[in-house]
Amino acid sequence: MRIGKYIYELDNKIYMPYVSSICGTYEAAGNLREFVDNVMEDDLWGCMTHEMAEIKMQKHIISQCLERAKIGESEVDCIIGGDLINQIVPTSYSAREFEIPFLGLYNACSTFGEAMIVGANMLSNHQNRVICVTSSHYATAERQYRFPLELGTQPTPSMQWTVTGAGCVLLDKNPSNSPYIARYVIGRIVDLQCSDANNMGAVMAPAAFDTIYKYFKESGESPDDFDMILTGDLGRFGMDTLHYLLLQADIDVPNLNDCGCLVYSKEQKAVQGGSGAGCSSLVFCEYIYKLFESGDIKRILFVPTGALLSKDSPLQGESIPAIAHAVVIEKQR
Amino acid sequence: MRIGKYIYELDNKIYMPYVSSICGTYEAAGNLREFVDNVMEDDLWGCMTHEMAEIKMQKHIISQCLERAKIGESEVDCIIGGDLINQIVPTSYSAREFEIPFLGLYNACSTFGEAMIVGANMLSNHQNRVICVTSSHYATAERQYRFPLELGTQPTPSMQWTVTGAGCVLLDKNPSNSPYIARYVIGRIVDLQCSDANNMGAVMAPAAFDTIYKYFKESGESPDDFDMILTGDLGRFGMDTLHYLLLQADIDVPNLNDCGCLVYSKEQKAVQGGSGAGCSSLVFCEYIYKLFESGDIKRILFVPTGALLSKDSPLQGESIPAIAHAVVIEKQR
Repeated sequence: MRIGKYIYELDNKIYMPYVSSICGTYEAAGNLREFVDNVMEDDLWGCMTHEMAEIKMQKHIISQCLERAKIGESEVDCIIGGDLINQIVPTSYSAREFEIPFLGLYNACSTFGEAMIVGANMLSNHQNRVICVTSSHYATAERQYRFPLELGTQPTPSMQWTVTGAGCVLLDKNPSNSPYIARYVIGRIVDLQCSDANNMGAVMAPAAFDTIYKYFKESGESPDDFDMILTGDLGRFGMDTLHYLLLQADIDVPNLNDCGCLVYSKEQKAVQGGSGAGCSSLVFCEYIYKLFESGDIKRILFVPTGALLSKDSPLQGESIPAIAHAVVIEKQR
Repeated sequence: MRIGKYIYELDNKIYMPYVSSICGTYEAAGNLREFVDNVMEDDLWGCMTHEMAEIKMQKHIISQCLERAKIGESEVDCIIGGDLINQIVPTSYSAREFEIPFLGLYNACSTFGEAMIVGANMLSNHQNRVICVTSSHYATAERQYRFPLELGTQPTPSMQWTVTGAGCVLLDKNPSNSPYIARYVIGRIVDLQCSDANNMGAVMAPAAFDTIYKYFKESGESPDDFDMILTGDLGRFGMDTLHYLLLQADIDVPNLNDCGCLVYSKEQKAVQGGSGAGCSSLVFCEYIYKLFESGDIKRILFVPTGALLSKDSPLQGESIPAIAHAVVIEKQR
């Protein structure tokens, strides 16, 4: 069913019976240390390069998710996912390890939301089970987007820290007592002409506003209808900006939270907070999912956010387009 | 309906009432010169950089497709597409120009097939119209994957020529007298350990074989049931390899063709033929679509192929994974 122009309500709920996640030691020492699922011993995890470590992270959690679900590769119809690295090499190379069809996505740090939306659509037709996966790695992202780590470059005050982490969720059309996807909104691109590649919060907050505003306007619901409005990786400055934008539109969201703000503790000096395609998938799979399981939350509006720049596009004088997808995730009371 | 394990048959056909395409002067002088839709005056097309020219190409054909369909942006539910450039900047930046939700994809040169599959799934649920778009540009791809053009580097004999071109198709669930998507197969990743980034035909032919073999095995159909089996951008060597692999499996495909082989004439010295995410979309939209319209063909198995490498992954000692998606496209007699 379609609610208004932008909200799609699934005729059949799409369930999430199993998840798996992995993070680096820095993330494992953060705010969510009690909830950690898997931790890498170090950033290379026995690999020759950080890119290969990111491949290994994805491979590990996909395998673990299959084990937890007690199903074989042949019982999964598709792997759907992406990451931040050029040509989404970590996702393609991890998907290579499985005899499972593959759809690669790229919407930067909002890719986990995009994967849930594409997956829910596949399952609303003929597929039975898909795996949605995204990852990021501090060292691979820094090398590609900014400077070699060896330079020890000082972060600017508006920067965010790319999360070394990955999360995957098994989507299943068979009903179970697990959280499920009920509705979604596909984001459009919003670009308010910010060209500061070191201030992703400012870039992405207007996109998150656009999607959240549309959701409340079209659904007739209010923030009170949710236990949490959870954005992807706006960071502290971006979340403040979003709060301000929503207040200007007469939407007060006291239950607004952000995966990028949740992941690190203030003592960790991760500047504005976490970011990366693995930020929202890690926080969702290792933390939010457990809040659903324990009954602490029953319904969230999950809004992964993404900045669609490349290393070169701001250097060519372009501003940075951003996008935010929204997914309503619920669990039966 | 699901046919076997890998073939999905759509309950309702997904129609393609309008297409638009654009190419460079080199492509406009090739085999398909009689069918050209739009041609850029030169590779920069009045832009500061080749990347901006690729953005302009996509923007132009999406606008033209909307004009041809006589619909506004608000009547399209989603733009779905991708390209070869880091972080799919051309697609994201062209989608920025439209008030239309956006899903970015990356499966290298098979992205056009992937976009049709994702689009058909969205339309099988609640969406009404989506635009699928992919592009590539010789100068942006060379700069990113190989050497600056100014070096005048000699191509190796096994290389292919990245097509400067883009194509977009409007998918519509409302029946019309146009070609439609009837079935699809999502490819899995195939990697036979080839690590030669200058021989994409060798890399991708086994993936095309895997998907085509599965299609014929599961459907019980034979190549005779199609007017054409059309791969994406295997080039001449890759198509010969695929022919050989299929013959080894007792499948003779006299009607095998390849977008990469179709696009350039032999006199053009484009080595093994065309490649790029815009190769299959350009050839489909400017040529194959017209063959459907004129009644020359009624049913094809369209198999866009992709090599999922980055510039760095072979340098890190990795072989090159490949993928091929299949889409059955028909038109009522």
